[in-house]
Parts: sequence; structure tokens; C-alpha cells
Amino acid sequence: MVGTSPVGLHRVIEPVGVLPQAAQRLDSRPEIGPDEVRVRVERLNLDAASFRQLADKHGGDGAAVRTEVLEIIRTRGKMHNPVTGSGGMLIGTVEEVGPDSPLGLKPGDRVATLVSLTLTPLAVADGLADWDGRSEQVPCAGHAILFGRSIAAVLPDDLDPQLSLAVLDVCGAPALTGRVVRRYDRPVTVAVIGGAGKSGSLSLAAARRAGAVRTVGVVPTDAERERLAAAGLADEVALADARDPVALAAAVGAALGGPADVTVVCVDVPGCEHGAVLSTAEGGTVIFFSMATSFAAAALGAEGLAADVTMLIGNGYVPGHAAYALELLRGEPAVRRLFEARLAAD
Amino acid sequence: MVGTSPVGLHRVIEPVGVLPQAAQRLDSRPEIGPDEVRVRVERLNLDAASFRQLADKHGGDGAAVRTEVLEIIRTRGKMHNPVTGSGGMLIGTVEEVGPDSPLGLKPGDRVATLVSLTLTPLAVADGLADWDGRSEQVPCAGHAILFGRSIAAVLPDDLDPQLSLAVLDVCGAPALTGRVVRRYDRPVTVAVIGGAGKSGSLSLAAARRAGAVRTVGVVPTDAERERLAAAGLADEVALADARDPVALAAAVGAALGGPADVTVVCVDVPGCEHGAVLSTAEGGTVIFFSMATSFAAAALGAEGLAADVTMLIGNGYVPGHAAYALELLRGEPAVRRLFEARLAAD
Repeated sequence: MVGTSPVGLHRVIEPVGVLPQAAQRLDSRPEIGPDEVRVRVERLNLDAASFRQLADKHGGDGAAVRTEVLEIIRTRGKMHNPVTGSGGMLIGTVEEVGPDSPLGLKPGDRVATLVSLTLTPLAVADGLADWDGRSEQVPCAGHAILFGRSIAAVLPDDLDPQLSLAVLDVCGAPALTGRVVRRYDRPVTVAVIGGAGKSGSLSLAAARRAGAVRTVGVVPTDAERERLAAAGLADEVALADARDPVALAAAVGAALGGPADVTVVCVDVPGCEHGAVLSTAEGGTVIFFSMATSFAAAALGAEGLAADVTMLIGNGYVPGHAAYALELLRGEPAVRRLFEARLAAD
Repeated sequence: MVGTSPVGLHRVIEPVGVLPQAAQRLDSRPEIGPDEVRVRVERLNLDAASFRQLADKHGGDGAAVRTEVLEIIRTRGKMHNPVTGSGGMLIGTVEEVGPDSPLGLKPGDRVATLVSLTLTPLAVADGLADWDGRSEQVPCAGHAILFGRSIAAVLPDDLDPQLSLAVLDVCGAPALTGRVVRRYDRPVTVAVIGGAGKSGSLSLAAARRAGAVRTVGVVPTDAERERLAAAGLADEVALADARDPVALAAAVGAALGGPADVTVVCVDVPGCEHGAVLSTAEGGTVIFFSMATSFAAAALGAEGLAADVTMLIGNGYVPGHAAYALELLRGEPAVRRLFEARLAAD
């Protein structure tokens, strides 16, 4: 294979010219180009929304779900649920590395992909025979292809792979939070909305490491408040409904002695944009990590409040994000306890 | 009316407790609170995305568009398109000023509102009888309410009001573009997608004033290419479909000799997120001003491309934005000609 594109354009069969994520069908042949990597797949982690749609459609009939997943992968060359538009991630072992691959992987590395399955060429060899179709965790023999600009993290030896995966799934949040806090030329206050969740707890830890002078984690329930307070990851823990702008701003203001310099939105419910803006000081920054964020609500909300705040779309990729998040997990026992408790509850 | 809130909470009918922009319905009664201002409305300027959606929905049937706009204003107490989530702005004359209003307006001032119609209480008295439903410019008799924290600009005497309005409508774009360009500690290249439009041409002028070393305006048609090239507002003018990521990135790369440090998205069509990300250099910034921007497409697109770019939600409010945009219009004859030509064509 010659003339490979770092974003995988050469693997797009149809429609021609779109990026792999937008493609109907990818070429999943195992031969790799000079900057590609082939991974021997061990397990697929289907996106929760995708698995739920398939399970609902087939009324919980695992064999039918398995047949449909196989059919999607066969016809699309990737696990890209056409209804939900979502994919998931995978774990496997690096099998072959092209001479020009910039990913720094070597054969035998056990890796998790940090780009979506919706853009990852994939072929299944075992008919998913070891999967009962009743769980998002799909044992799978086959191969997947990483492009020059794909991202994969080597799974660390010292951590349970499930724990690593849970951290890697949200590793963009702490990396970007830390970067934003460090970019201010003065110590800043930080509010993390949804501070007891996966991305929230990591973001609180990152804010503190980056030099935040005072932090507050905002949570929606008494149970989460107790858990986060016990963890000690934030200077203050506040209880508020993030969808209530006035209540949220009051809670943040009381905890920090005024609006936050940096507000990080980590709750996956719609309608938190105005509260986040109202909780943020003039000249401050709001980072939206929630996929439920409405672009228009944020843009018009800030304008309508005459709020001079910088609003960032939370980019899931920041260089070094995986290593940074794993290091936070190792270095902050409280973060680790929160993650382990959450995995145990799943 | 007592106990008025500077952000207009007292005007929200339902759901209770949200900010006016998030409200389903506002109270547009003409009686003002102590910090409010009532404006006698002269003209509405519908947001381009909103008008396009309405025109498309009704297949260009102006009467049907007018009926729907009237129905939206009647049922919501504001012009807030429920599909696009966007509004627009208005011009009118200040009729009454509450004793505690901080806006510095006086009765008789001719003003443009710089906060969205999506949060401005509005009532129409003439059934929009003078509007044919075929233009974003809506002659309108009625009244609107400004809150303590609303923003309104007095229309300057030296400029045609239509011209001022067109500039003020998009004045957040040049202000934020200029700020982003100035924040880099080195000269940057700037690509403006939709460079021949209102926000686009002002953003190009702002980028140059802020010290951009090279600029490109990307446009979708030959006619716009010729117009922008003749204006001389950009160092290069490129023709590309912004919804085609590969074509867009190639056009920007060819014009600038590589990806842009700062990419400004000013086209109001969906699907431009991936192209904008792909057109931007590592460490660069994308500013999304288009209300058609999908938060998820931007966030997942950047992650899928492993693109270390900062993505900004274009906040329509930057302190001093109105004066800055009017100054660009006065100081850049090419900008003025583009605006005048556009108004003449409407």
C-alpha cells in the first residue's frame, strides 16, 4: 500500500473523499502502509449508547445482536453503529508496525485505542464466537488498523486493564484542565461541575496540580457530596443542580468567595451552559467536556449575559493526555479509590 | 414590576428559574422595571441560520414564513427559532428608561440591541404587515425590553442605520478574532472560512490589523471569489466547499503554505467542523462563529484527527466590540464596499 494518508483517507472506500469517520465503508485489509500499525484485537468495548440501541432493537436476543454487529463490521469495515453514530474502543496487541509510523509502538505492546471505532478499520476472524451478545464487552479475534494520526495508549503493567480503560476513556479532560489553569499568569480558582465523576475527579486533581489556588467540586446528590468530600480532592464540595443557573452560580460563589476563574463542565445532562457562564468571572474560561453541550446555548448565553468569558470545546486530544491521566491515578489515591468504587458498582 | 433581575429572570414565565435565553416563554408586557428599558421596535434582523431554516422549511413561501415568525413571537414572547436555537437582533428607538438602568440610554436614542432576540422580550403590534417573508430584514412595529445586563449600541450619526445594524449584528467576530491573533506571541496565519460574508470580511480586516502575517479568505463560489479578491481584504482568496474537509484543508494549505494558525468559521452551513480542524496547525486555534456548529462533531472530530487545536465557541460579547467593528468599517473602505454591496443585493 503506497501513498497512505495520516488521517486514513486511503482506507475510505465510499463515499470517496470523506474522512474515515464519515465514511460508509472502510478498507480493512490487513496489509499495512508505511505509517500504519496493525493490532491483533482481543476485545471491543462497544459504546454504551450503541450497545443499548442494538439490545433494545433485538429485545435482548444476544444471538441477533451478535449477528447484527458482525454484519455491521463486515459491510462497513468498522464497528460504526449506523443508528447511534457511535462506536467504542478496543484493546489488543500490536502485531506489525510500519517503518514510518509515528506512534512509538512496537510489536507485542498491549494497547487501547483512544480514537473511536467509528474511524478504525476492523475485521473479525472468529465470528465473535466467544460473545453472547449480552454485554458491551466483546471478546473478539481479528485485526484493526491504526493510522499515522491515530492514538493508542500502551496499557500499563501496574494497573488493572479495566481501571486503565476507565481512565483513558476520559483522559482529555484532566490534560486540558491542567493546561488552561497553567496558562493563566496568576493563581486561579477552579469549579468542576460534576466533580465526583470520572472526568470530574481527574479534572479536580489536575487543577490542583496545575496550581489552582482554590477548587470546588459541584455535585447533584448528597451521596456524591459525601463521597467527594471524603476523597478530599477539592477544597470545597457544593451541592447544586447544574441546570439551574442561579443556584449553580450561587453555590460556586459561596464556595470560592466569588465566581470561578476556570469552570469545567463534566456532567452529561443538557442545559448546563448558562449556569457555567454565570459561575465564571470576567476574563475567565469555561471548558465544556459534556457531549450534551449545545453550541448555540453557550454562544448566545454568554452574549446574552454580556459575559466576557472564553468558552472552549473540550477537545478529547491533548498531547501526553493518556500518560498524564494514568499518572494522576497513580499519584492520587483518592482518585483511584473513586474509580475503583465506580467500577465495582458497574 | 419590582425585584427585577439584571439578567431578566423576572421575565421568565416557563420553565421557572432558567435564564431568558433558555426559557420556553417570556413575559413581554410593556411595563418596565426600575433597571429595564423599553424600545419601540422598528426592524428585526433575523439570524441567517434561522431565516434559512424557515425559508427552506416553507419552500420559499414568504407568507408561510411570516405566519410562523408571528406564531413564534406570540407563543414565546421572543423571536427564538426552536429548530436552530438562534434569534437575531433589532433596531428601534428608546421609549422609556427605568431610573436604575445602567445602560446609559435616554428616550429618543436610536439603538441596536447587541444581545440575541432569543432572550429579548418582544411583542409585535402590526402583524409584520410590511414584511414579505423573503428577507432577513423584517420591518416591525412593536416593543422590546432590555434588562440591566443587556447590551445596546446607539446607532452612529455618520453611518446609514442599515449599514450599522449589519455591522453590529456580527461585531463579536472581529473583536474575538483580533484578540486571538494578538494573544499569540508570534505573527500568525489566519484562514477565514466564509471570508466574503459579513462576519468573515470583518474578521479578515481584524486579523490583518491585529498583525496576522498572512490571511486567506475561503469562499464557495466564483462570484464571491471575485468580490473578495477585488476587495483586497485577504492576501489570498481560495475557492472550496467548507463541508469537504480534504478540499478545504488543501485550499487553505495551498494559500498559506501550510495549515492556518488561526481558523475562523463564519459560514452558516452544517458540517464544517472537520474541515476547519484539518485546516488548522498543531497548537492553533479554531473559532466557531457559525450557529450551525455541532459541538459533538467538533469535539469528536478533533479527537479522531489527534489534532491539538484549541476550539473556541464564538462568544458574541467582547468588551468594546461594537465600537471596534464600526471603526473597522470606517477605516477599511473595502469592508464598507462589501457591506454596501450586500445590503444593496438583499
